[in-house]
Amino acid sequence: MGNADYTYPSKSNADNGAHRVAVPPPQPFLKSLKYNLKETFFPDDPLRQFKNQPASRKFILGLQYFLPILEWAPRYSFQFLKSDLIAGITIASLAIPQGISYAKLANLPPILGLYSSFIPPLVYAMMGSSKDLAVGTVAVASLLIASMLGNEVNANENPKLYLHLAFTATFFAGVFQASLGLLRLGFIVDFLSHAAIVGFMGGAATVVCLQQLKGILGLERFTHSTDIMSVMRSSKRKPKFFWISAMAPLTSVILGSLLVYLTHAERHGVQVIGELKKGLNPLSITDLVFVSPYLLTAIKTGIITGVIAMAEGIAVGRSFAMFKNYHIDGNKEMIAFGMMNIAGSCTSCYLTAGPFSRSAVNFNAGCKTAVSNIVMALAVMITLLFLTPLFHYTPLVVLSAIIMAAMLGLIDYEAAIHLFKVDKFDFIVCMGAYVGVVFGNIEIGLVIAVSISLLRLLFFVARPRTLALGNMPNSKIYRNMEHYPNANQVPGVLILEIDAPIYFANSSYLRERITRWIDEEEDRLKSSGECSLQYVILDMSAVGNIDTSGISMLDELKKIIDRRAIKLVLANPGAEVMKKLDKAKFIENLGQEWIHLTVGDAVAACNFMLHTCKPNAVKAESEQWNNIV
Amino acid sequence: MGNADYTYPSKSNADNGAHRVAVPPPQPFLKSLKYNLKETFFPDDPLRQFKNQPASRKFILGLQYFLPILEWAPRYSFQFLKSDLIAGITIASLAIPQGISYAKLANLPPILGLYSSFIPPLVYAMMGSSKDLAVGTVAVASLLIASMLGNEVNANENPKLYLHLAFTATFFAGVFQASLGLLRLGFIVDFLSHAAIVGFMGGAATVVCLQQLKGILGLERFTHSTDIMSVMRSSKRKPKFFWISAMAPLTSVILGSLLVYLTHAERHGVQVIGELKKGLNPLSITDLVFVSPYLLTAIKTGIITGVIAMAEGIAVGRSFAMFKNYHIDGNKEMIAFGMMNIAGSCTSCYLTAGPFSRSAVNFNAGCKTAVSNIVMALAVMITLLFLTPLFHYTPLVVLSAIIMAAMLGLIDYEAAIHLFKVDKFDFIVCMGAYVGVVFGNIEIGLVIAVSISLLRLLFFVARPRTLALGNMPNSKIYRNMEHYPNANQVPGVLILEIDAPIYFANSSYLRERITRWIDEEEDRLKSSGECSLQYVILDMSAVGNIDTSGISMLDELKKIIDRRAIKLVLANPGAEVMKKLDKAKFIENLGQEWIHLTVGDAVAACNFMLHTCKPNAVKAESEQWNNIV
Repeated sequence: MGNADYTYPSKSNADNGAHRVAVPPPQPFLKSLKYNLKETFFPDDPLRQFKNQPASRKFILGLQYFLPILEWAPRYSFQFLKSDLIAGITIASLAIPQGISYAKLANLPPILGLYSSFIPPLVYAMMGSSKDLAVGTVAVASLLIASMLGNEVNANENPKLYLHLAFTATFFAGVFQASLGLLRLGFIVDFLSHAAIVGFMGGAATVVCLQQLKGILGLERFTHSTDIMSVMRSSKRKPKFFWISAMAPLTSVILGSLLVYLTHAERHGVQVIGELKKGLNPLSITDLVFVSPYLLTAIKTGIITGVIAMAEGIAVGRSFAMFKNYHIDGNKEMIAFGMMNIAGSCTSCYLTAGPFSRSAVNFNAGCKTAVSNIVMALAVMITLLFLTPLFHYTPLVVLSAIIMAAMLGLIDYEAAIHLFKVDKFDFIVCMGAYVGVVFGNIEIGLVIAVSISLLRLLFFVARPRTLALGNMPNSKIYRNMEHYPNANQVPGVLILEIDAPIYFANSSYLRERITRWIDEEEDRLKSSGECSLQYVILDMSAVGNIDTSGISMLDELKKIIDRRAIKLVLANPGAEVMKKLDKAKFIENLGQEWIHLTVGDAVAACNFMLHTCKPNAVKAESEQWNNIV
Repeated sequence: MGNADYTYPSKSNADNGAHRVAVPPPQPFLKSLKYNLKETFFPDDPLRQFKNQPASRKFILGLQYFLPILEWAPRYSFQFLKSDLIAGITIASLAIPQGISYAKLANLPPILGLYSSFIPPLVYAMMGSSKDLAVGTVAVASLLIASMLGNEVNANENPKLYLHLAFTATFFAGVFQASLGLLRLGFIVDFLSHAAIVGFMGGAATVVCLQQLKGILGLERFTHSTDIMSVMRSSKRKPKFFWISAMAPLTSVILGSLLVYLTHAERHGVQVIGELKKGLNPLSITDLVFVSPYLLTAIKTGIITGVIAMAEGIAVGRSFAMFKNYHIDGNKEMIAFGMMNIAGSCTSCYLTAGPFSRSAVNFNAGCKTAVSNIVMALAVMITLLFLTPLFHYTPLVVLSAIIMAAMLGLIDYEAAIHLFKVDKFDFIVCMGAYVGVVFGNIEIGLVIAVSISLLRLLFFVARPRTLALGNMPNSKIYRNMEHYPNANQVPGVLILEIDAPIYFANSSYLRERITRWIDEEEDRLKSSGECSLQYVILDMSAVGNIDTSGISMLDELKKIIDRRAIKLVLANPGAEVMKKLDKAKFIENLGQEWIHLTVGDAVAACNFMLHTCKPNAVKAESEQWNNIV
């Protein structure tokens, strides 16, 4: 890294045209505000199709936005019906046993599992955008409901109130989801990173398995029960084995029921489901509880379960859409989920979502549209109207086994290992969530996961990297000398790249760190007897923005540097940064001629002035200043 | 921005050496962890002076670290003493009336104001690093104490308990400050941005003024009283007027007392201070309250007042150190503040800090070292021992006037205007804090200020800018086409720069946004009949880091782009990004030959392949895919 290899570039600027760094023309505040709002809330520009359309067409497009079924139903063909029928019956065979199992997980009457696979899928088929999502209850949400409502109300002592609170929580979950979708605040779920969800789901699955084990072994239930569900990655399941896993739950139910029926095991202590009421969903709109103190619990439960269910559902929808090459509008999906849950809360259903496992089955079974959900709903309807007596003898242990089998699929240790290999911080997030859920409860796990994730973002801004750049041989390119060991230090010039915006959170740190870079460089030059430092070039390419604290920092840095008889030079400041520096009169203060378009230009300008080497003796004078008390 | 001006660069890579982008060699995790910890906690490398020193010297250096007086006292000269004497007496003349006033603001016995100007400055003189800071009570903290403790305990009904709680809060403030300093967590105060503090202080000053007005006009006190203090900027006061403002409080006290004494106004309803006990600070270590429920209030009050006082004190210290060209270690200062308050809490003092106004007076009066604080403390000691009867007749209205005069100086509307001009978001932070304090209370104002500030950081990462780059004429440089209108679009190539790290918070957004860029570009090319899009180059210069969500996003983006028969190219990925992409096998997937050191190299490589223009008809085939339901 010695400077013997450094060749001074010629002053000629012919091949870069000596472009000047300009201050961008001022933009009216409202215009840039409008732009920022659009980027935040409408990054995918969903209203693009509405442009230049007559009013009647706009009305139809609007209706189609909220009810996508109006868009694809006219193009529905018999071919699709065949595929959707098979897929629908397949997921129904999962939905029925799983629905009953998860309802018990939520300490709710098992029939609710069937109700929840009837109305919500119908609503989703009308309003949802995914062609592959299979709607139903999810283990995580069921566990969360049991846990959070269970803190307030004991399901055994007060089952009616507990039931009504579950409906109320579902209602608020729906309202929250729909609101987020309508207000286009969907990006909030982006703050739940994949790593956090892997840990979170794995932790809940662990807890559920342990809980079910206790049930299977006849031990008392856990008092804390947190339940996490689907993994967010596209699984690469072998399609042939998938039929086995798809049929397994229903088969176990049938075999188990037969066994109990034939041996009359229920009279010998084996617990069974028992009586399941016939008939469709009763209305429950009058059951919603809006009084304190329960209202707050219901709201809290609704919001947390709503967010988690939604995050999963949207990720699942997006994964399959990516795979099949169509597009999903996340905010539109949220509205669909919200309406689904609001409708469900009024028709004796509890929280539903789009679980990954069931959607994967739907996908592998060859579904073509959301009609598969309609087929499933019809199958469940038939079950509700005629087939509920069949479940009378189903042993609970079969339900536990079904739950455990689903849960084990959720402990995604492969994803965790991948995280460990690629990005250890993400692994920490994952483990933090896991540990929080297993040893604390689900809310703690969620808080830990989100906090650690956000901390990472804050940390990136608060402690940005500063890199020393060197010249790539035979070029005007300057790169990080640690990344490219063949890059050469430029004599008399220290080139630093700052890898983050300069905000209040990192201004002090940057000032200290850059000062330290300068100190260390001066020490090095002094001890090696080379030319003293004359220029410090700050490469601002990666500085996306700057605030007033950042501008103060640059001012202070300039003062510090000036005192040491060194010149500060800026290279490649972006548009936003230039605007602010101009308004703060920093450019006047520094001098326009010391702001360059590229590091190469800056170095050339410095070298032009740098023809004699300043011996280190000249510096001694400025150092005396430091000794004055 | 047409492509008629674009000249294809020649394939010759002679002047950039066709450098390859390498994956940096793997670093042991512990080594990079150690590096990161050092950057976070020791950015200024304070232990540098300890290197290569014998053990005895290390011990002395260590002692000097905690007691800087041992370092500068041996070099103290008579010259300094002269300056410090004048400065010390000047600030004493402020400290005495202000101390009494602020103590009343805190609903504490006025004598505490004098106690607090005796012991704490002595501690600071031994342990502090600033030569200009003048220690004493501050209006903000006094107001905060009145507000927060007042919620728990009424100062009029239960004055003894209130007093003891104030000591306890001061104790915890000291412990918190010292801990932060010892654990080198000082960067936490960096999260209170200058803009937030301007608004915060202005709001509190407003509230105090209104409160005092009510007192002066004889109206009832506000129940909410929040008090914010010093402005964090170096004021450019005209030194000649400063003597007037420095002498004014004491003069008013003397005149007011004389007036009341001569007219016996205190018998006619004019409230006066009354009896002030003679004698030095009594010990209060036994008065500290460590029982619930008050303990929690004391801790909370202590932490909040401690943080605010500390943030101000360090900023003030730094400003003057910058000005006079010496260095302050923020963490060391925190330890000094902490010990000052712990000692104060045991000697009947309440929270002290380094207020800007008094330090500015100290500075302008020509102080040379912290001995000015010692002189002030001695002056206060003399007052405590002999002069307290002089304050018997001081009317309270004079104290109110003193407070108001100090507060008006804190409503820094000039700073607010500057914020509005330079950075409107900072202005919003400022106003948010102001409104929160004035219309809510201080805690709300603080929470609002910090939240909005942090939101800005999160928003920067969650909604990064993506810029389209064009070629600067006659060069290989590519810059933002909005910033440089003379930059030319490259035909068949879309070059995008991403201005932030690619994390979970922005992965979805970036994928949508980049897809939209591609859609819009393809629409534009189709309608103008030009060559279709064949390459998308992502300039990763400003992408400081990437996590697993980001890598998934790049994977998905590549799939989307591949389907459209477009090639994805990366330019200038940094060391961290390359490492992660390599571990995640993305580089294998993309192809090493599609990662270039500069955008220029990438464009040259694309052009080499791009010699025939692909007509838009070829694209139709890939679009049919989108119509499949």
